[in-house]
Amino acid sequence: MNLSDGGVTAPKGFLAAHTAAGIKYSDRDDMAMIVSEADCVSAGTYTRNVVKAAPVIWDREITASKAPVRAVVVNAGIANACTGEEGMGYCRDTADAVAKVLQDVEPKQVLVASTGVIGMQLPMDKIRGGIEAMAKDLSHSREAAGLAARAIMTTDTIPKEASVVIEVGGSKITIGAMTKGSGMIHPNMCTMLCFVTTDAVIEKNALQAALSSVVEDTFNMVSVDGDTSTNDTCVVLANGMADNPPIKEGTEAYDTFREALFEVLKKLAMMMAGDGEGATALFEVRIEGAKNRQEARTLAKSVVTSSLTKAAIYGHDANWGRILCALGYSGVDFDPSDVTLTFESAEGSILIAKDGHGVGFDEEEATRILSRDHVTAICDMHMGDATATAWGCDLTHEYVSINADYRS
Amino acid sequence: MNLSDGGVTAPKGFLAAHTAAGIKYSDRDDMAMIVSEADCVSAGTYTRNVVKAAPVIWDREITASKAPVRAVVVNAGIANACTGEEGMGYCRDTADAVAKVLQDVEPKQVLVASTGVIGMQLPMDKIRGGIEAMAKDLSHSREAAGLAARAIMTTDTIPKEASVVIEVGGSKITIGAMTKGSGMIHPNMCTMLCFVTTDAVIEKNALQAALSSVVEDTFNMVSVDGDTSTNDTCVVLANGMADNPPIKEGTEAYDTFREALFEVLKKLAMMMAGDGEGATALFEVRIEGAKNRQEARTLAKSVVTSSLTKAAIYGHDANWGRILCALGYSGVDFDPSDVTLTFESAEGSILIAKDGHGVGFDEEEATRILSRDHVTAICDMHMGDATATAWGCDLTHEYVSINADYRS
Repeated sequence: MNLSDGGVTAPKGFLAAHTAAGIKYSDRDDMAMIVSEADCVSAGTYTRNVVKAAPVIWDREITASKAPVRAVVVNAGIANACTGEEGMGYCRDTADAVAKVLQDVEPKQVLVASTGVIGMQLPMDKIRGGIEAMAKDLSHSREAAGLAARAIMTTDTIPKEASVVIEVGGSKITIGAMTKGSGMIHPNMCTMLCFVTTDAVIEKNALQAALSSVVEDTFNMVSVDGDTSTNDTCVVLANGMADNPPIKEGTEAYDTFREALFEVLKKLAMMMAGDGEGATALFEVRIEGAKNRQEARTLAKSVVTSSLTKAAIYGHDANWGRILCALGYSGVDFDPSDVTLTFESAEGSILIAKDGHGVGFDEEEATRILSRDHVTAICDMHMGDATATAWGCDLTHEYVSINADYRS
Repeated sequence: MNLSDGGVTAPKGFLAAHTAAGIKYSDRDDMAMIVSEADCVSAGTYTRNVVKAAPVIWDREITASKAPVRAVVVNAGIANACTGEEGMGYCRDTADAVAKVLQDVEPKQVLVASTGVIGMQLPMDKIRGGIEAMAKDLSHSREAAGLAARAIMTTDTIPKEASVVIEVGGSKITIGAMTKGSGMIHPNMCTMLCFVTTDAVIEKNALQAALSSVVEDTFNMVSVDGDTSTNDTCVVLANGMADNPPIKEGTEAYDTFREALFEVLKKLAMMMAGDGEGATALFEVRIEGAKNRQEARTLAKSVVTSSLTKAAIYGHDANWGRILCALGYSGVDFDPSDVTLTFESAEGSILIAKDGHGVGFDEEEATRILSRDHVTAICDMHMGDATATAWGCDLTHEYVSINADYRS
């Protein structure tokens, strides 16, 4: 399955736009819009944080219903979280404004998403201005998708897009997606914003099932800082313009679609982890030989979340004791004297610990391997066949700088 | 109850020593010893990490038995964790060496403790040399206790001691303690080393019960970085030289003793949090109005552990949204629109958020309050009467510097 770097406009019938509405940033785009030419079946997964931002509440109601969706509008700078009834009203006002400028679109067909500072209210005049500007600028182009992906960034340093083409029942189906996320990122739903478009004909149940299961193994395996956001949102819109035979759960076509969705979201999850706030490296943790999948996931997430391990990765230090320590406090029971640990990167691979203690490896070689921008720790638990992979990043001075003064 | 700054030699019949054995550090003490003139009843609490250092396994067996204890020997620099059978052998050898140089002491009456790098073996010649030097230098003095507390430090910047005198049944009882801990610190047992001495006459069951319950509300409510160490150890030795009527569980005397122990360990817990690696401030989180004590503890620990909140405290930024967010992902259910948040320090107190959203506070005043070296966030959940307090510290550039290159 070959991923390409196209984004949300790659599938048939999707348009994107972007604009600088001046919500909080100056001199950059801060709003994006995705519009489908045809009604879409939708699915969504959202933050499990008890404190849910207003757009999460708005979107969840829509994607849980059978109502068709036509558009998504996103702003960066202000999260519209902890904003009470006033914030909920602004979701409605935003959807109203989109419905007003697009033809044949109802407010309840518009998803909204926000990211940025918690606790501030949205400046609705600027939001309305942005929507009006974007409505005039909607485009099918590759470029429009790329600029939309850039417009929704906060502390991200690179825009994140992916797309893939598959064949189902003789029809060509395309999936495209864009995501943002760099801080306040920790497994429990997407921990960021992600918008997926596809021209597939697919039943609503199948779309939601595919999304939920893929998110478990992609975005929910990412951690930048252990903080689960109030705004996490991942929605997928399927407009059916590929004219394929409808995809239903439990079929081969469903498996193909799910696999394609997995590849797209996995790529975005890895991009997000590698672009974690202040990160210099993508840190991948692969657990092998675990007793079952759940334990493998728990072990992988415990290591990828360890501040001490992440700081060691920043220092290119093969501090394997911290990794064993993090496995040990994960809550999973295992015999430390059975664990094998290997580090791997584009530079090669090196065995670091075996049977629970160090093997007298070459420190210089280890440092060379750990100096690349994608570093993998492979822990074999020797207890069974289950595996899991988690993605995170190193903990750097820059992370502290970014977050010691984010609001100003 | 007035705490004084005396340490482990404050109770009758306890001596301390310290030495520079050259285990890993140069130009500083790195070993300490506590010896009691009389047999001690002991109690201990240890790390819940599956990966347990050799000294933890050694001590746990002794404090779980009814055998008397006479001495504790501690080294800094190497943790003797992930060291297999060889490491266990070194615990025995260390205890043998102590028994050899002290009169009437058996190896099984000697507790050992180590802190430092994981995965390296102890240099036993240096350990033996240190023990011989300390045996000649044991002292009842206040100064010896202070230098012992300094000798067990790793990345700590200050030694940590406390003591208290209480009266039980007409007898004066003293409790003294020293602790170390600065990184790899997260609630799940002491998350550091702590040695408590007392001259109380107390039944073993009562001593263990008092210690276990006090640790839950003190050291187990501290987090520096979310990493639970392999070496966490908190032991208490009671040599009975105060000649008080024996303290039993369920009595007033027990309550008095427990309260005194609580005050001593709470002070040390706060010192440890405030001296967290790279910390510029002690960050205290007080939950009020929770439904029950367990939920209060969970909420407090979730906030004190949040990297984003800790970075905001470093930046003196009243970023209350991050605190609400961390409450929200704690796993406790609550209504965000009921939460009140106040910041407090020696500079004063300021209401920041009410009914789940910001109250338009004076940012400059908030920054002034957050600029002190002890900052408290008070979250009233308005759900019940339960309270809990957790202690941590800010997340700083220095934390990253320390941990990106700890091994070298």
